[in-house]
Amino acid sequence: MNNKKVNLLDKFELLGENWSPRVVAELNQYQFKIAWFEGEFVWHSHNDTDEAFLVLEGHIKIHLESQIVDLREGELFVVPKGISHKPEAIIRSKLLLLEPKGVINTGEAQSDLRADNDVWI
Amino acid sequence: MNNKKVNLLDKFELLGENWSPRVVAELNQYQFKIAWFEGEFVWHSHNDTDEAFLVLEGHIKIHLESQIVDLREGELFVVPKGISHKPEAIIRSKLLLLEPKGVINTGEAQSDLRADNDVWI
Repeated sequence: MNNKKVNLLDKFELLGENWSPRVVAELNQYQFKIAWFEGEFVWHSHNDTDEAFLVLEGHIKIHLESQIVDLREGELFVVPKGISHKPEAIIRSKLLLLEPKGVINTGEAQSDLRADNDVWI
Repeated sequence: MNNKKVNLLDKFELLGENWSPRVVAELNQYQFKIAWFEGEFVWHSHNDTDEAFLVLEGHIKIHLESQIVDLREGELFVVPKGISHKPEAIIRSKLLLLEPKGVINTGEAQSDLRADNDVWI
């Protein structure tokens, strides 16, 4: 049993880059990831999976084609699979993500914001 | 697209009972659940799945056979499948859980603390 507890906010001290999800824990075939959000991300979708966003600190919006979801500290939103979305940070924000192992941050989109995958912190 | 954002702490205002996980969001075949922890739970295990605990407010311990994991606000721990564990709240605490749909709170144990499953709040 090698699992260790993770202090989510403390982990951000090790993470400089924005929009670069880093794995902090695994549950079965799923990964909890932390990421700094700052400014606007790119429109993209994940055709095989839902994706969860929990704001640990800060304030973001998730733009969807039909609505904008405003998310503040302690608020959770699940983007359904196949739904195009664009995260935007109103202020630089600390996010917890949950998705299956192997999911690329930019999904189906071509973008310079594509981050390395499956990197632990 | 019927998903709505969830304010996790606000949801606890609707939930009185301790040790009764309630579903607040789904991601693929997984469910985010909130639960009040107070006092001691029962030793149990889940033979088919890992289980994640994130302390939203409060202070708990998760007793394992080989160690005790002390978890405070903002700390996450994943109990691996098959590992016997006993959650204990040091103060009444607000927890976020993640596990596959269908998981029973008392796992393989026989206990009066077994809660109804798949109940949304």
